[in-house]
Amino acid sequence: MTLPKLSPSDLEAHLAQLDGWTVKDGKLHKEFKFASFVEAFGFMSSLALVSESMGHHPEWFNVYNRLTIDLTTHDSGGITDNDVYWAQKANQLST
Amino acid sequence: MTLPKLSPSDLEAHLAQLDGWTVKDGKLHKEFKFASFVEAFGFMSSLALVSESMGHHPEWFNVYNRLTIDLTTHDSGGITDNDVYWAQKANQLST
Amino acid sequence: MTLPKLSPSDLEAHLAQLDGWTVKDGKLHKEFKFASFVEAFGFMSSLALVSESMGHHPEWFNVYNRLTIDLTTHDSGGITDNDVYWAQKANQLST
Amino acid sequence: MTLPKLSPSDLEAHLAQLDGWTVKDGKLHKEFKFASFVEAFGFMSSLALVSESMGHHPEWFNVYNRLTIDLTTHDSGGITDNDVYWAQKANQLST
Repeated sequence: MTLPKLSPSDLEAHLAQLDGWTVKDGKLHKEFKFASFVEAFGFMSSLALVSESMGHHPEWFNVYNRLTIDLTTHDSGGITDNDVYWAQKANQLST
Repeated sequence: MTLPKLSPSDLEAHLAQLDGWTVKDGKLHKEFKFASFVEAFGFMSSLALVSESMGHHPEWFNVYNRLTIDLTTHDSGGITDNDVYWAQKANQLST
Repeated sequence: MTLPKLSPSDLEAHLAQLDGWTVKDGKLHKEFKFASFVEAFGFMSSLALVSESMGHHPEWFNVYNRLTIDLTTHDSGGITDNDVYWAQKANQLST
Repeated sequence: MTLPKLSPSDLEAHLAQLDGWTVKDGKLHKEFKFASFVEAFGFMSSLALVSESMGHHPEWFNVYNRLTIDLTTHDSGGITDNDVYWAQKANQLST
């Protein structure tokens, strides 16, 4: 099933609840910074499991303790509930 | 370099600072329980990096959200400062 | 849905195709040995993703380059198709 | 200790042995493609251990089964033996 792209107002409402996430180039975007690579990669591993389980994978860039994440749903041509859910999981796992 | 096995009094002093760790069958021992496999495996990944970096690897058993860890230094015939350091890192990363 | 426990003859037929796996204490069992901890943990990470995606998690014990895996389906009281599938994935990823 | 930046001729000689690696924007560069995210992330996990052990971390970008890696040694202002060693490990672990 292809999820519908979120409407601007729905997206706005979600963003208000997603600490640190913005929309950049049409994707949900956040930059994380950790105390060390050890902590950054543990976080990535947890989210790798979430991603595979959802069948929904991020675009992510890591160097040392920094991790930049962009989320979009290709089949839907934009940001969907799956991206919002993934972002919520990321925030929850980073605290 | 082979680290010396800790004396009983030194080991006792370290254990007093290592929340949740005991000595079982001559090894530093702790059982962790997480909210989910996702969190358990993220923790294991962080500690895998620590382990490889130290050249000091745990005996660990995982099923779902539970992780049992035993630490000893084979070359020293018992528990050493390396095991204590590893245990400290584990406690720090689990909080 | 609870999968049915495999019949002895079905289990036998599967085992004939599962290189290195045996039944031990009523569980599918295999011991893997890798060239290094680096390779062992990469393998574990791949299978952690498979496990979370299936909602089916192994009992596994690792020390350095060795990994012992036991598989059973608790809700079914024995070995099911899920365990066989997991074992197949493990063999495929280890080659 | 700060490793010296490789000379153009030394770099050339190394590149001849490093299947799939090129120099892009002054960094060692390669794009890997795997059969699945499961395999890509297992590979990343192995290399995360190598990285932490070396104290030398990649710039890497992943989406699903694709992984783009750039290597440089910041303290040396360019590509050093550490980058070459990391690239060798990556090639070895991807086969």
